[in-house]
Amino acid sequence: MSDTLTHFVDGKRAALDSTRTSPIFNPSTGQRSGEVLLASRADVERVIASSQAAFEQWSAFSPLRRSRVLFNYKSLLEAHADELARLISQEHGKVFSDAKGELTRGLEVVEFACGMPHLQKGEHSLNVGSGIDSFSLMQPLGVCAGITPFNFPAMVPLWMFPIAIAAGNTFVLKPSEKDPSATLRIAELFSEAGLPEGVLNVVNGDKEAVDTLLTDPRVQAVSFVGSTPIAEYVYATASAHGKRVQALGGAKNHMVIMPDADLDQAADALMGAAYGSAGERCMAISVAMPVGDETAEKLREKLLSRLDELRVGESLTDGPDHDMGPLVSRAHLEKVSGYIEQGVQEGAELVRDGRQLQHDSDGFFIGGTLFDHVKPGMRIYDEEIFGPVLVIARAESFDAAVKMVNDHEFGNGTAIFTRDGDSARQYCEQIQVGMVGVNVPIPVPMAFHSFGGWKRSLFGALHVHGADGVRFYTRMKTVTARWPSGLREATNQYTMPTL
Amino acid sequence: MSDTLTHFVDGKRAALDSTRTSPIFNPSTGQRSGEVLLASRADVERVIASSQAAFEQWSAFSPLRRSRVLFNYKSLLEAHADELARLISQEHGKVFSDAKGELTRGLEVVEFACGMPHLQKGEHSLNVGSGIDSFSLMQPLGVCAGITPFNFPAMVPLWMFPIAIAAGNTFVLKPSEKDPSATLRIAELFSEAGLPEGVLNVVNGDKEAVDTLLTDPRVQAVSFVGSTPIAEYVYATASAHGKRVQALGGAKNHMVIMPDADLDQAADALMGAAYGSAGERCMAISVAMPVGDETAEKLREKLLSRLDELRVGESLTDGPDHDMGPLVSRAHLEKVSGYIEQGVQEGAELVRDGRQLQHDSDGFFIGGTLFDHVKPGMRIYDEEIFGPVLVIARAESFDAAVKMVNDHEFGNGTAIFTRDGDSARQYCEQIQVGMVGVNVPIPVPMAFHSFGGWKRSLFGALHVHGADGVRFYTRMKTVTARWPSGLREATNQYTMPTL
Amino acid sequence: MSDTLTHFVDGKRAALDSTRTSPIFNPSTGQRSGEVLLASRADVERVIASSQAAFEQWSAFSPLRRSRVLFNYKSLLEAHADELARLISQEHGKVFSDAKGELTRGLEVVEFACGMPHLQKGEHSLNVGSGIDSFSLMQPLGVCAGITPFNFPAMVPLWMFPIAIAAGNTFVLKPSEKDPSATLRIAELFSEAGLPEGVLNVVNGDKEAVDTLLTDPRVQAVSFVGSTPIAEYVYATASAHGKRVQALGGAKNHMVIMPDADLDQAADALMGAAYGSAGERCMAISVAMPVGDETAEKLREKLLSRLDELRVGESLTDGPDHDMGPLVSRAHLEKVSGYIEQGVQEGAELVRDGRQLQHDSDGFFIGGTLFDHVKPGMRIYDEEIFGPVLVIARAESFDAAVKMVNDHEFGNGTAIFTRDGDSARQYCEQIQVGMVGVNVPIPVPMAFHSFGGWKRSLFGALHVHGADGVRFYTRMKTVTARWPSGLREATNQYTMPTL
Amino acid sequence: MSDTLTHFVDGKRAALDSTRTSPIFNPSTGQRSGEVLLASRADVERVIASSQAAFEQWSAFSPLRRSRVLFNYKSLLEAHADELARLISQEHGKVFSDAKGELTRGLEVVEFACGMPHLQKGEHSLNVGSGIDSFSLMQPLGVCAGITPFNFPAMVPLWMFPIAIAAGNTFVLKPSEKDPSATLRIAELFSEAGLPEGVLNVVNGDKEAVDTLLTDPRVQAVSFVGSTPIAEYVYATASAHGKRVQALGGAKNHMVIMPDADLDQAADALMGAAYGSAGERCMAISVAMPVGDETAEKLREKLLSRLDELRVGESLTDGPDHDMGPLVSRAHLEKVSGYIEQGVQEGAELVRDGRQLQHDSDGFFIGGTLFDHVKPGMRIYDEEIFGPVLVIARAESFDAAVKMVNDHEFGNGTAIFTRDGDSARQYCEQIQVGMVGVNVPIPVPMAFHSFGGWKRSLFGALHVHGADGVRFYTRMKTVTARWPSGLREATNQYTMPTL
Repeated sequence: MSDTLTHFVDGKRAALDSTRTSPIFNPSTGQRSGEVLLASRADVERVIASSQAAFEQWSAFSPLRRSRVLFNYKSLLEAHADELARLISQEHGKVFSDAKGELTRGLEVVEFACGMPHLQKGEHSLNVGSGIDSFSLMQPLGVCAGITPFNFPAMVPLWMFPIAIAAGNTFVLKPSEKDPSATLRIAELFSEAGLPEGVLNVVNGDKEAVDTLLTDPRVQAVSFVGSTPIAEYVYATASAHGKRVQALGGAKNHMVIMPDADLDQAADALMGAAYGSAGERCMAISVAMPVGDETAEKLREKLLSRLDELRVGESLTDGPDHDMGPLVSRAHLEKVSGYIEQGVQEGAELVRDGRQLQHDSDGFFIGGTLFDHVKPGMRIYDEEIFGPVLVIARAESFDAAVKMVNDHEFGNGTAIFTRDGDSARQYCEQIQVGMVGVNVPIPVPMAFHSFGGWKRSLFGALHVHGADGVRFYTRMKTVTARWPSGLREATNQYTMPTL
Repeated sequence: MSDTLTHFVDGKRAALDSTRTSPIFNPSTGQRSGEVLLASRADVERVIASSQAAFEQWSAFSPLRRSRVLFNYKSLLEAHADELARLISQEHGKVFSDAKGELTRGLEVVEFACGMPHLQKGEHSLNVGSGIDSFSLMQPLGVCAGITPFNFPAMVPLWMFPIAIAAGNTFVLKPSEKDPSATLRIAELFSEAGLPEGVLNVVNGDKEAVDTLLTDPRVQAVSFVGSTPIAEYVYATASAHGKRVQALGGAKNHMVIMPDADLDQAADALMGAAYGSAGERCMAISVAMPVGDETAEKLREKLLSRLDELRVGESLTDGPDHDMGPLVSRAHLEKVSGYIEQGVQEGAELVRDGRQLQHDSDGFFIGGTLFDHVKPGMRIYDEEIFGPVLVIARAESFDAAVKMVNDHEFGNGTAIFTRDGDSARQYCEQIQVGMVGVNVPIPVPMAFHSFGGWKRSLFGALHVHGADGVRFYTRMKTVTARWPSGLREATNQYTMPTL
Repeated sequence: MSDTLTHFVDGKRAALDSTRTSPIFNPSTGQRSGEVLLASRADVERVIASSQAAFEQWSAFSPLRRSRVLFNYKSLLEAHADELARLISQEHGKVFSDAKGELTRGLEVVEFACGMPHLQKGEHSLNVGSGIDSFSLMQPLGVCAGITPFNFPAMVPLWMFPIAIAAGNTFVLKPSEKDPSATLRIAELFSEAGLPEGVLNVVNGDKEAVDTLLTDPRVQAVSFVGSTPIAEYVYATASAHGKRVQALGGAKNHMVIMPDADLDQAADALMGAAYGSAGERCMAISVAMPVGDETAEKLREKLLSRLDELRVGESLTDGPDHDMGPLVSRAHLEKVSGYIEQGVQEGAELVRDGRQLQHDSDGFFIGGTLFDHVKPGMRIYDEEIFGPVLVIARAESFDAAVKMVNDHEFGNGTAIFTRDGDSARQYCEQIQVGMVGVNVPIPVPMAFHSFGGWKRSLFGALHVHGADGVRFYTRMKTVTARWPSGLREATNQYTMPTL
Repeated sequence: MSDTLTHFVDGKRAALDSTRTSPIFNPSTGQRSGEVLLASRADVERVIASSQAAFEQWSAFSPLRRSRVLFNYKSLLEAHADELARLISQEHGKVFSDAKGELTRGLEVVEFACGMPHLQKGEHSLNVGSGIDSFSLMQPLGVCAGITPFNFPAMVPLWMFPIAIAAGNTFVLKPSEKDPSATLRIAELFSEAGLPEGVLNVVNGDKEAVDTLLTDPRVQAVSFVGSTPIAEYVYATASAHGKRVQALGGAKNHMVIMPDADLDQAADALMGAAYGSAGERCMAISVAMPVGDETAEKLREKLLSRLDELRVGESLTDGPDHDMGPLVSRAHLEKVSGYIEQGVQEGAELVRDGRQLQHDSDGFFIGGTLFDHVKPGMRIYDEEIFGPVLVIARAESFDAAVKMVNDHEFGNGTAIFTRDGDSARQYCEQIQVGMVGVNVPIPVPMAFHSFGGWKRSLFGALHVHGADGVRFYTRMKTVTARWPSGLREATNQYTMPTL
């Protein structure tokens, strides 16, 4: 497969004017599998125009009628789940079961969006004053844009556009140029489900495309998921152009392990949360924070024995899945390797070195890596590595653990492992993090709740999907109404004589 | 088709011990088409036992997992819509398009119930006091029962069990013994959609079955739709046995036509609302109440010319649908005819006599009937006829119209036709009726709103479907929690020396 | 003070026709302190007429205007808190601090009801179909009635009427005839706060008054708190008369103490929860259920040492409060004593016998009583004693404890004491009880949550106060509206030539 | 009164380091009445530090405890209403009754915020997966800032800080330097109501103070009300510094008058809406848009006769209020006069020239001004004048009116006057404006609904006060919890032999 991937505009795959491309690789083999067109500013403006044109009709449909298309879409996504998962695995590198899991979480947002007739209700007050009523309409905004990262080519777009579209908006999606195939296919399936042309457009591109979306006056709202520097740029730029924005950035998620925790459960959880999807998840656990040295020693042993059995390999196999596939690109592989080198130089103990992994392909593989005695100030603690590198940062006490987590720049996700109701409850209240797991390593909220971090992990007031997602993609209009009397009373007057 | 219809228990059609039966007719031909078993008390108790047994597993499923079965069910109902509509038309007598319409409204409740993971949320309060949290769980009740009328063999059951079941309850449905085929089939389809055995059971029967459901201590909640005397009996009896109950009764729905109304629109609306489904609807308009004699005269003329063109005939045809089919039974036909005779004797003007209808079958046909100069105190005004009999009751003024509507025993539905915002708004505020249409003749609320009348049209606090439906089928449990300190602080104590 | 207490009707204290009376006692001295009039059926009908008359004006006020009266009322209740608490203590017998606490919990409902402009909102849907909108009005019902018990003469009435009245209803309150003074005074203060005459009436009486309220057709809704047999009677009777009802009955609240619990905390909690207010609380803990004999033995020792220091005495003192005052009446004292005798005869171990209490007044005193080795089947386990009698029923395991609690007839409140998040969470999910405390002995929900039990502790679908309370006291009306075109288009037509 | 107004920090009035000042005038006399300190960057940082320090304690209070301070505050504001209104009138120039009205609308937000224990609830889901629960905490943000305009020195601040503070935040308010006295006084009263020191600080200043608030990393959220250019600047700047922002800007509010409207009612409404508060309101009607020339002519006549009787004069009098007071400053008077001159030059018909007003003081007076035949493209149509200048822009049809309103840059408020339900409904749906009045000229939503415009009248996703206000001032944290089994099961294991 060495195709040129185009855009998806007005209900079909189509090239636009720009002929610039970016290569696409199969990370399991390291081979180039194709390329994707990169849109120019003019291209993106044309796509926005398509979405703008589609808005009038689509927004005039009742929420019920729109939701029917979503119901169809859900069925189609289910029917094509294996095909989509393979596309994800081929371009991203995550193993098939991971890809299926990603899809399921995205699908759940489609299910949630099916409830739009209920979710889009406003409030109604009879008699805010005598004879005066007030009510709110939650209307769609117009053209919304989503800019999504390589690590979840299906799930993250599905966090956004099903809700936006169910609420009556049209949507321009700019997925990652590294793995656009799955994204294009889910858009195509929405069209097959009955979505009118132009309601969902996908435009591939790079910074030029992004900048066009952030600045074009027809775009009303921007949702972004990616790294913190870009999230900040998106938030500042789109805000400066008057748009509403939610921009989700990076993470460094800590799992605090209390002395009373079920350590086997914690170690199992860490293996999946740290190494699953090769650590390329904004909700991956990258810091294990055992409380007390005794806890730390036991945990370390359990991790090491599990690391011995971690199976790394191709994302698609004929047999059972590997535990972990390759990284997304050679450049990223080098970056992750560089962090490992950095960690050694900063004095952390490299307990297991994933660079030693033996493999006989040119795929972008690296093994599961473990550091111990990592501390704030080291780059491998302070920065997001986005690879299969877990660091143990020991805390002397519960309070010390809370302090370290709260002092970190990011506040996306975190977990505490304990049996103790008090420890869990206090952690939940005190921790400056948006998503908290209690004995749950990757506490991604369900579609009917909302996803979002704190501190420099999210810019904006509203989280993604759930009730917040609906609020983000609707504009409130408040009506206050009273009526002049006259016609009604007149009917009474002329009957007076007969009474 | 002269089969014996059985029950639907534990996922399959099955006879039980009782061999009593009730005949089923095709109202379009007047021919007996089959019969249905009538369950004994012991039979019903056995069915309740099945639902009770199914509760443990079903209620333990997460709302999300349950909702997936609802999604499947929606698809199956759509795929079988024509088949179901034919079953309705054959046994009830309403025309095919009516039957399809009924099904659609029922299907919308299934769609609403797909949102149960969101709808079943409780509330959470951090720190109701210092360190004390409070939250509510909305748990299923157990076995719920529905007792439903002949006039909507698909829609009314679908108002109830999809929500009850999505919320984690199991359900025993006792449909009308006059037209159980469609009801049995929709239950069967739910099973095909993946519903575990026993979660939805259908038991056919008469008063003996009803009384068992109302008194058996395992039944937690009863939903009923039917006539007011039975609704009162159900409400009193099931309440006396400690259950929560919502019991919907009869109606006499008025349409007030203001002098400024679009009279053609009003007359068109009346034809459908009064004669559609042969008037066998609890939301049918049976009283047209023009304000002022001028309005009345014009409206009467428009109705007469439309009555000339009302096509009455078989419920299923090879060509286009008739406007109106037969009544459900010979007994009902005689009852309706008796009302017409009564109206004449009470001094109302019989403007069009449906008894004159010519037809050459033994079907239970009667034509569209119109009375004028009908007044409170006449039985054709005070009572629900449930046939294609529309009466004109003239009002001298808006206030007089409101007074007449509010003085009536029933308060199910009503409509006002006007262009005047003031008249509409005042009508909505003042009228003692649960469902109000403004230029909408049959204001049945959508599935995501709630259906329910006032006065003697509904007994109970909660309406049907929508948020009220969810509340009816869930039991609130409120938790207040705090935790003893100790383990957490202990981790701090042993680190003190190191600080 | 040997006054004759009258009723509170139309904004003032007033006698009605009936001259029957019931005596009132000071339980701390055993002396008769006065008497209260008992209304006849005709009296109650007159009071209902007053409330009916007040409804038209009061319901026409906007929610905002009504809430202003509630704000004033809150201030007045605070200003009169000591006076009210003294009235409670004098007639009920609970100690002053308990009486103040009761008042605070009632006051919180007034605070909640101040938010009625927000709480009474309906829902609004734009475009349920094309050009058709739907919205709901949550209107008041009319005259509501409350029938309240002796044990919380201020709090339980305040659970009901502030919400009912803020929502636009008028209210007839029939408090206990044993301690009506505080209830009358809180009604009087509402009047002083600006409540129009007749909106809140208090009628004193016995079964004759109750029956009138349950059967009078003008009463739309009945809220009741009392014993289960009467709750059932109220639910059945008022339902048979077509009303909506919430009837709260008896309780036998278990506290499960897990082996890992903080036993000192548990024992302290039990002392307050079992003996506070002399056990005359529907949320009192009357069964301590330690899991495992070791837990039981330790807990028993801790309770015994605390019982040595339990101070029993007058409800009002010059110095610090006693821990516990007298029972409400001599008859109740004898009933509680009888239960103790019964327990001994049934084979339970009477560890501490409150009948031995030494005191030198004629007050209705009994000491804190403790049984051990109590089992299901004994009357002191199965029935509600409503006195300072705590029984220890040992459970062999968590599951055994859950089973015993779930097998009990009542399901009002319960608590579990543990540090273990898992035990607490499973208990909360599995237990068939409406209000659950986790290390909270008396988990009465806050005013903004809802109070209500399960099983035979509550009859009806909606709980008391919180969002459920608002729903109980409002009637939903759903409007579906569209408008005939014409006038608007006409403005366009006549301008066509100019375009 | 020629005092130097200071800041309000840590619970008391206080100067800070900067000694720069800005003069304050009495607009009715034109005399300088005092001056106000203007804070330096260092001053503002010190004030932020105070609010930051206060956050820990205040946010730890339960919502209920916080709400109690709000209840007290409401009482104090009521008690001081006349005093506050006089302060407003003296420095702003609006007449006393207007000032009282402003205060009432602000007070209503305090009343709404009293409901915070209910409003701040999160959601709770039992079993998002088997044995896994999820719930959300709505926690305060930290230090929030408000920057408020001169035209509502009490109301606009009261839109913001009561909700922010009730939700647990602390607040730095920077009011207009033109009329800070009332703002300072309402802050002082909050302190008297029991608010801890530092929870609400008021800092006076100019751009330097504003910029500090927009860029200081401790400030979490910024609410702004003012002109559109500044709103854009605030939105862009504070967003670029990572904050959540809601920035409300300018307006040009149209009232569409349909041919069927009650024209006397419309004309009366216009007089208040255009000239009240001298037009210095962001919800003032500044464009009257009659549909059809006949409507226009009639309306013009009615306005002219009413303008003859418009009483302009001092904001405070011994007798009855004037209809309209002076403008806020001499500079603003000149700006408004300049717009009138501009209108004449652009060819609009100056029907009544407020510059002709006779008055014998040096106050900043201008009379009510009316233009006719105003069109898009004229500056008096396109721009916000913020003075007593009403322009008539005639529309040929309903559709033409809608188009003109939708083509305007601003979308804050609008009104339609009609009796026709259809015209009103279509206007509400189609109009691109955030707040719509139906026969209500100034449709400011009540405190329990939300205030906000569309297009360039508001930047940000969430409106002010109501549920949106609560969402703006809270940060969502979503917890996902499950518990390791073990302790609970252990209790069962050791009892196995006994079963």
